[in-house]
Order: sequence, then structure tokens, then C-alpha cells
Amino acid sequence: MTTGKINVSVENIFPLIKKFLYSDHEIFLRELVSNATDATLKLKHLTSIGEANVEYGNPVIEVKIDKEGKKLHITDQGIGMTAEEVDKYINEVAFSGAEEFLEKYKDSAKDSGIIGHFGLGFYSAFMVAEKVEIITKSYKEEPAVHWTCDGSPEFTLEPSDKTARGTEIILHIAEDSTEFLEEGRIRELLTKYNKFMPVPIKFGTRKETLPKPEDAPEDYKAEEIEVDNIINNPNPAWTKQPSDLTDEDYKAFYHELYPMQFEEPLFNIHLNVDYPFNLTGILYFPKLSADLQVQKDKIQLYQNQVFVTDNVEGIVPEFLTMLRGVIDSPDIPLNVSRSYLQADGNVKKISNYITRKVADKLKSLFNENREDFQKKWDDIKIVLEYGMLSEPKFYEKAGAFTLYPTTDGKYYTLEELKEALKDKQTDKDGKLVVLYASNKEEQHSYIADAKEKEYEVLLLDSPIVSHLIQKLEADNENLTFARVDADSLDKLINKDEEQISKLNDEEKEKLKTQLEEIVPKQTYTVQLEAMDSSATPFRITQPEFMRRMKEMSQSGGGGMFGMGNMPEMYNLVVNTNSELAGQILGTEDAAQRSALVKQALDLAKLSQNLLKGEELTAFVKRSFELIK
Amino acid sequence: MTTGKINVSVENIFPLIKKFLYSDHEIFLRELVSNATDATLKLKHLTSIGEANVEYGNPVIEVKIDKEGKKLHITDQGIGMTAEEVDKYINEVAFSGAEEFLEKYKDSAKDSGIIGHFGLGFYSAFMVAEKVEIITKSYKEEPAVHWTCDGSPEFTLEPSDKTARGTEIILHIAEDSTEFLEEGRIRELLTKYNKFMPVPIKFGTRKETLPKPEDAPEDYKAEEIEVDNIINNPNPAWTKQPSDLTDEDYKAFYHELYPMQFEEPLFNIHLNVDYPFNLTGILYFPKLSADLQVQKDKIQLYQNQVFVTDNVEGIVPEFLTMLRGVIDSPDIPLNVSRSYLQADGNVKKISNYITRKVADKLKSLFNENREDFQKKWDDIKIVLEYGMLSEPKFYEKAGAFTLYPTTDGKYYTLEELKEALKDKQTDKDGKLVVLYASNKEEQHSYIADAKEKEYEVLLLDSPIVSHLIQKLEADNENLTFARVDADSLDKLINKDEEQISKLNDEEKEKLKTQLEEIVPKQTYTVQLEAMDSSATPFRITQPEFMRRMKEMSQSGGGGMFGMGNMPEMYNLVVNTNSELAGQILGTEDAAQRSALVKQALDLAKLSQNLLKGEELTAFVKRSFELIK
Repeated sequence: MTTGKINVSVENIFPLIKKFLYSDHEIFLRELVSNATDATLKLKHLTSIGEANVEYGNPVIEVKIDKEGKKLHITDQGIGMTAEEVDKYINEVAFSGAEEFLEKYKDSAKDSGIIGHFGLGFYSAFMVAEKVEIITKSYKEEPAVHWTCDGSPEFTLEPSDKTARGTEIILHIAEDSTEFLEEGRIRELLTKYNKFMPVPIKFGTRKETLPKPEDAPEDYKAEEIEVDNIINNPNPAWTKQPSDLTDEDYKAFYHELYPMQFEEPLFNIHLNVDYPFNLTGILYFPKLSADLQVQKDKIQLYQNQVFVTDNVEGIVPEFLTMLRGVIDSPDIPLNVSRSYLQADGNVKKISNYITRKVADKLKSLFNENREDFQKKWDDIKIVLEYGMLSEPKFYEKAGAFTLYPTTDGKYYTLEELKEALKDKQTDKDGKLVVLYASNKEEQHSYIADAKEKEYEVLLLDSPIVSHLIQKLEADNENLTFARVDADSLDKLINKDEEQISKLNDEEKEKLKTQLEEIVPKQTYTVQLEAMDSSATPFRITQPEFMRRMKEMSQSGGGGMFGMGNMPEMYNLVVNTNSELAGQILGTEDAAQRSALVKQALDLAKLSQNLLKGEELTAFVKRSFELIK
Repeated sequence: MTTGKINVSVENIFPLIKKFLYSDHEIFLRELVSNATDATLKLKHLTSIGEANVEYGNPVIEVKIDKEGKKLHITDQGIGMTAEEVDKYINEVAFSGAEEFLEKYKDSAKDSGIIGHFGLGFYSAFMVAEKVEIITKSYKEEPAVHWTCDGSPEFTLEPSDKTARGTEIILHIAEDSTEFLEEGRIRELLTKYNKFMPVPIKFGTRKETLPKPEDAPEDYKAEEIEVDNIINNPNPAWTKQPSDLTDEDYKAFYHELYPMQFEEPLFNIHLNVDYPFNLTGILYFPKLSADLQVQKDKIQLYQNQVFVTDNVEGIVPEFLTMLRGVIDSPDIPLNVSRSYLQADGNVKKISNYITRKVADKLKSLFNENREDFQKKWDDIKIVLEYGMLSEPKFYEKAGAFTLYPTTDGKYYTLEELKEALKDKQTDKDGKLVVLYASNKEEQHSYIADAKEKEYEVLLLDSPIVSHLIQKLEADNENLTFARVDADSLDKLINKDEEQISKLNDEEKEKLKTQLEEIVPKQTYTVQLEAMDSSATPFRITQPEFMRRMKEMSQSGGGGMFGMGNMPEMYNLVVNTNSELAGQILGTEDAAQRSALVKQALDLAKLSQNLLKGEELTAFVKRSFELIK
């Protein structure tokens, strides 16, 4: 038996890095600016604990394009490297400098926000550069060095006359990457990835007009000076304490995040947790536009103020991906699959924490200013209802602030609703019947009838409401929901009151036969009822159970298999006490009776939005004749 | 100046591979089975050119779970490796064995379908295994060897008593990866990635009943034997010549690809090109379901029969991503960003080739069997219309087969349409006016009016039709489209015929004043017209330009900024020659006149689907009174 050590063939490591390290070449700039930031923060940390006896000052990272020379410079004023350190950190691939640093200064470094980016990130430079130079001077009293490598594993190292502390990286941009010599492209990348990094980043200069001095002469000319153009905000709102931020600050940050977004957010949720994982951030409930598809402004994920992605699928519970804002956490694994994320314990905890915080915030908003909360209800209900259906933990908490609006603009919680309705809307079996409409316009006449009986009608118009109702019924004994057009009101809330009929049984039988001769029976079942003589003579209803199952199977999941394709079935409720019923019964001429029934059926169909196309055209034509 | 060689620190290479090589750990199985396939195909090649003097036979790759031993075995009967080759190919990371092999046997190897997967892929085993063994015997007369490595860079190499040619890989599955010891999981992965790989893959056995022998005695008992369970189809349809495949073969392959898909595809397009890039595949036009969102069965991308992804964004033109099927090409770069794909010349060529093939196929389907093509039109039009708008090259070709259906079920090409309409629908300025409806039901009465005048009405009901119309008008001089409810027909196709009015100017003025007193002017502009006395007395129209711009800005892109939010504006066209107009004019009592106008306006609104909610309830109630 022989033993040996697997040897990594260096000749192939660069193509490997180029191919596998990052699928997106533009990432190199994020990595190099991150390294520059780390080097600066390390120095800050060392000076703060007295390990480095130098002035920290106000260090800036500079990114500079040399278009003619086809070079890109990234310069920091951080700790720099000695020749020995270059050998250790640069000439050895896959050696994480930050890891060792963190190990050494474990406790004190924890709070200084240093990322483990060092190491591999640097090599991403070779994705876009044919040659890379490092000119660096350590904060220690040692000479500066100049490292050069053309992407082959050979490098050269020589002394440099650099006197300023810090590191300058020079990329000789390759032919196929000249996009990275364009000012617009670099600005775009800096804005995308480094907008909130903790050290100021200078990119070019801009002109600024000096303020007019108080003692300026009358012919004072405004003076312009060149100032550094800092492209980032090193202290974004989410890194601050909630107590230090006003409502205006939160709104301002929202617009800083989404400059193209002109609407104000509804409210924000500040996230801040240290243990058992580290997470900060601010989430915003936006005013959702009608078009949910075009969601460009998404939640952004950062790690220590470095932008990572705006795809937070798997990290944020699905129902909250419609929110906006920022999440910053070093504890979320990157570059992993969704199924891995779902299995990761930390990620699960983060997701649960976010759910809980959102629920708590909603509860406090509801308690603190119910009126305002009600005003926002329409904009937030989809998110909340979806959350109740998909997250059991959210469902538990949501009872405290979920609202059920009526068609009159009142808002009840479920408990309030039960209390308000119990006297009038409890049926003979002790069931509380909640009436609802899905569309105030389309179901107007049915709503009007219910209101006449002093019943409350909820307005439940979300696309997933049938699923929610189903769940509420399952969880609340003796509670049942019925859409206001599901049957006649006397049947929907059956109080076992005797119906006094103007017609005797024989007359009823005759009327039913007359009606069934004309009304198409594959669609309508005739149902005679003795109601107030003033109540609508013909009404079309659709049984709750069938309709709800159909809706559920159409909106995906739930319902019963195949229900979505069932034909529509209706009842035609005819008020036997109406004048019209008597009239039909009394009309001996079959043609006249048929015309009467058809016109009445058309009117009933109109109220249920069923009169369309050719039938409607004929109806309108007939009606124009009638008014002449 | 010193020079040196960058050193890759081996201790860190395994964590690196684990982290960066693939984001999805499950990929290891695809990689190992690919290697086994390559090893088999290499042997096939060498025997075919006489370089290996061994029997190729009917080699099978076997995948076997040893749940108790926590091991997964992948065994092939391919070329195997000598000790020297293990040293070269396994002990040196980032060394692509396939590359060297291809270099050596360049020309003869080209057609044998050998992939450059060798090399790095093997190390993906360490993503799921804490220890990996290789037991391998080369086809050459050399002893078998046994390699073992526990993920540290140390390995051991010892002789093995393996006598069968080929390689066995044994993975000692790590604690966090025990999912890969589940039969269901492995079956799922083999089905996902290896379903069409070119060497048979055995996974377990299954029972098969032997056929009854002809001379079987009467009391013959069916005999069962165990046979290898082969999970893949090594010769999928797309690897064959179109001339060797029947319609039934194509359909059968569709269902092999999408076992959960019960509908038949409409038609298929066989792709087959060698130069300047290599691509084979079969695309299917599916019957698109109403719900375009839930598109689970997508086009699958393969490389030499190995599944890569079902995300073909950037490779297939966007309008064709609604199709289904398979694309197999080694020339598509993997693991790259979308923007990179878009810039890649090869990918652009592939995308253009696919577009051209699809257009050619559509043209030949149209020419060969127009009736059948017309039947399928409703199912394919969205894809085609979207293609015409987004791909100029497709637009050029699409003229030959794009259809314009009428509300009567006729189908015209654009040229046929011009010819058919020119006599009746050319206006006084020589413009050909094409009338269309977006909904046969909703615009029924307007369509009926147009038909009465013997005008053709197209049915254009796709959501993007306003964009398409806009483009057709721009590209065809003297062609204009108008929705059938955009104005009175006399105005839409203005032939400058004199209108004979029953009313004089004074009466008209009086009628207009009367109407404007009652009709809400923020919504309706009263427009008097002298039409046939039998024509509808009141009609609501909506100007084409405004409506189209609104639709375009709502369906995204195009239209004019802000138009989407403009209030709806209508014209009320009143037929001054109608009896009703005379009646209104003659009614002195203001209340009566108002009732008359309101009822007529309500009827006009009904025809335009504008009578809703409270207004409709009141209308129905009033109408019930009227029929008593």
C-alpha cells in the first residue's frame, strides 16, 4: 500500500476560478471593494484596541478608471500588507486571511463587522483582468511591496516606493471585459453592490458651490470647488437603533433604497436580533399595485452592508416576499440551493423570527391606531390572508388583528363579528351565519335585499378568500359563511319562521309546471318560496358549497378534484307571493305567459350578470320597443 | 525582484469544492454517472478503431444502495484505470482527463459523444461522502487498484483483486447526506438527470413474467424471473433521424418526457444542426392551458443526453419558452449569467436558428393542411403574436402564416383580408378599415350592427393585440384597425354618403340640449347622427385611439405614459332618425322626458357592459314594474 497527498495542479486553478467561482463576472468589483473595506475596518479595530499605533483618520476607498491605460484602480487606506503577508495571503490560494484574523482577535473583532471575504475573492480579479498588480504598504514599519501576476501561476514581487498606508489594486482589464472601463458600468456596479458599505467610497469628483460668506461683497461671485464624489451611504438606517429613527427617516431610507418608487410605504418593521443568529433590517409594507406580477422592487439581502441578492426566496416566508426593504445577516448561507436553505436550521429560525416580528408589528399597529390600520387594510389584506393560509404560526397570531370589512365600510375582528351578528344571524340550529359578497357591484341587488333585513354583509374580495373561509369554518364551531347570492335569505339564515303563502299547494304545483316548461332545466332548478309580496319576484342563486369548491379548485389547491370544470348550476327562486307570480299563474295564453316568464328570467339573469351576448342584444332591442 | 509560483493550499481545496463547485449537492450523482458513461463510451470508441483488443459487449452502469453499510456504489464496465492513470486523473485536481483523451483521438472521437466531464466532477462526491473508494481495473493487462480518500488530501492506493474490467466508486455517505441512501431519492435523481443517457443504467431489479411457451401444458404456471431494472432510455427520439420517426413516435416521446401530461401536443419541430454549432432536439407546441402561470413542463436542456436544466431563458427566444421539448447542445455555456448568454455569439446563433426553424415549420404546416392549422390557431396564436412583436426576424416570416379570424369563424391571412375587404370597407380617403371585436359576447350588439351592413368583423382577443395592431398599421400603408364599438359605423368607415335627417338643425339643437341636461357630461359626449330609422336609437362608443393607448399602457410597454390611469371617456351616439329621438323631442314634461332618456341611456349602457351595481338594481326593479 502506498499513501500520498492529492496534488492540486496549479496550472489549472485559474481557469477553474474563472469558470466556477462566480457565474457573474461583475462580482469582481464587489469582492475587491469588500476586501478594501475589510482592510480599513481591520485597521480601525486594531487602533481601537491599541494594537496599531497609527492615526486611523477618515479613510476613503477610491475606485478610479484609467481608460487610456485600460486599467481599473481600487485603492484603500487600510492595514496594508507586508511582503510576508502578501506571500501568505495572496500567493496561497484558498487561504482565508479573515478567518485567521478573526481567530486571533476573536472577541474584540466580533462587533467590528469584519467579513470573511478575504482570500478567494481577490482571485475573482482574474475573471476580468489579464494582469493584476498589488501595491501595498503595511501599517507596520515595513517597506512597501509591488506584486504582479498575469494569470499564470507565476508572480513577481519587488519593492515599491509607495509611502501612503494601504493597498492599491490595479487591474489590467482584458479585451473581453472592456465594459468595466466604462464609467456608467462601474457606477452601476458600485450602486448595486456597495451603496451601503461602511467605508466611504470615492468615485470621481463633482463640483460644489461654496456657501456665500456672510460678509460677502455685493458683487460676490459664487465659488465652485471640486469635492470627492462619495457614492455610498456608510451608515444606512438599518444599522441604527430604532429609537434613533423617526418616521421620516424610515421613509427617506425607503426612497434611498428604491429611487424609482414614488409611493410612500404603508409602514415599516425594524428587525434587530443578535441571538441565536445575527440579523438586522427594515421591512416595508408597500402599497401593492394591481399588477402583482411586475414586482421589480424586492427585498434586498445584504451581508454586513454588502449587497448579495434580491432573491430572498426560502429565507423570507413566501407570503412576505411581497414586502420591500433590507435584510442584513451574515448567518444566511450563500450559493446554496433552495432545498438546502429549507433544511438549514438557522434559516428556518430566521424565517420564523421574521414572521413573528411582522405579526407583532401588525398587532401593535392595530392596537395603537385602529382607524389608521383599517384604512390600510385593503392594501395589506392579501399578504395577511396568504400568510394565514400558509404559515400556521402566523395564523395563530393573526386573529388579533385580522379584519372583516362590511360592504358598508365597518371593520370587525372575528370576535367582534360574532358578537355583532349573534342576535340577528343565528339560525334555528344555533349556527351563526356570516353573509358575504365578493363584489359590491356585481352582487348589489342581493346585498340590498340582505340590508333590508338588517343583516350585515361582509365584503371579502381577495382571490384566496374561499380557502380562508374554509379554514375559519373548520376552526370555529357553529360558524358558517354564505355568499349573499347563495340562496334566498330565508334559506340562508333559516329561522324556521312560518311562510304564509298566497298560493295553495295546487296553485304552486301549477306555477312550477308552467315555469319549468320555459326555464331551461339543465341550468336552473325552479324553487318556489313564499316571501314578502314586495320582494323581488325572480332571483337567481348559486349554492354556496358548489361555488366555493369550484373557486378553490380554480385558485389552486383545495376544493375537490375536477370541480373546476363542472358546469355552472343555479337555482331560480320565484317569490310565490309576488304580483308577477300571480300574473303568470293567471295568464291563460301560453305565448303571453312565455314572454312574461322570459322577460322576468332575463331580469333575474341581469342581476346575476348572466345575460350576455345575443340574449342581451335581444333583450335591449325588446326593451327599446317597450319604452316607445 | 523575486519571482515565484502561486501555491494552492491543498488543505483548503476540499471545503472550496464543497462550497463552490455546485450549489446543489444532488449534482454529484449526475457527475459520477456521467463519468461512468464517458468511461464506457471511451472503451466503445477504442474498440471501434481497433485500439483496444477487448470485447465491448453490452455494458451496463449499475447504481446500488447499501443502506446498512451507508454506502452508495456506482459501477461501470468501461475502460477502467491503471495505477498510473489513477495518479494522473484522480490525484491531480483540476486536470481534465477527457480533454487529454480528446486531444489524442481528436478526429475519431468527435462523433462518439464523449463529454469533457472527467476531472472535477469526481470531486463532487465529497459533497455528500465522508470517504470515497475507487476500485478499478483497466482494459489494459494491468492489475486492478483500490484508492481510498477521506476528504483530507491524504489518500491510500493498494492492489485490488477486482477481475472485471471497469470502475466501481463507493461513497461512504456522510451524516448530513443520508437522503442519498433512500431508494426514492436516488430514483428521483436518476430520472431527473440520467433518463436519456446513452449507456443503460441499472438500478435494482424487477420481476417479469415469462411468456407462456407454445407447448405449455394445461396446468402451466406463469414463471417469474428477476430482470435488471434499467431506468433510462439510451436512444431517445431526438438522437434519431426525423425520417426514422413517425407522428406516433413523436407523441410517445412527448409523454416519455412529461409523464404527467395527458394532453397531446399540437405539433413538433425536430431540430438538427451540425454547423456552425451542434444542436439537436425536438420542440412541441402544447395546447396552452388558460393558466399560463403554472407552467411546470418546460423545455429541457441536455448536453450529450445529460440533463442540465429546464431554465432555457436566454437560449431559446423568449416567445418560445412557452413551448415544450428537449434541446441538446454541447455548445451552450453553462453556469453563466443571463447577460453573458445574451452576449455570446454561439448562443445568439442558436437562438436565431430555433426561431427560423419554428417559422419554417409553421409555414409548412400552414401550406400542407390549412384547415388543420386553422383549428390549432387559437392554441398557438399567443406564442406567434408575441413572437411577431419581439423578434423582427420572426415577424418577417410570420406574414405567410399568421391568421386573422372573423367572428364568423373564417380565417384570413393579411393579404387575403385586404383583398376580401377592399370593396366594402375602403373609406372615402382610400383607407382600408378593418373592424374587429375583442369579445364576441360583450360586443355582440355592435358586431350584429356591422354584420347587418355586410362588414366583416375580426375576432382579435389576445391580451397583446393592441400592440400588434399598432405595428400592422405602421407597416401597412392605408390600413387601419377600429374596434367595432369605437364609433358609429358610418363614422368608422366614412364613405361620405349624405345622411338624410328627419330633424332640422333647430330640432337637432333642441334635442342635444335636452339630452345634455340629463346625460352626465363628464363621462359621455352626446353625438347626434342621422341613421336608418330602424337602427338602435342610443349607442355608447369609445374612441379607438384612446382605448388602444390605454390598453397598450396597461399591458406593459407602448402606449403613452400615464394613459393607463386616464378616466374612461365615451360618446353617446343618438340616432336622430329613430322614433325614440322624435319622442324625446316631443315630450314636453321634463320629468317624463328625463325618465325616457334615462331608461334609453341605461339600455345603451347595458349593451356596453356599463350598467352595474346600484344602477342595475334600480333598472331591474323598474323593469319588473314595467312588465306587470
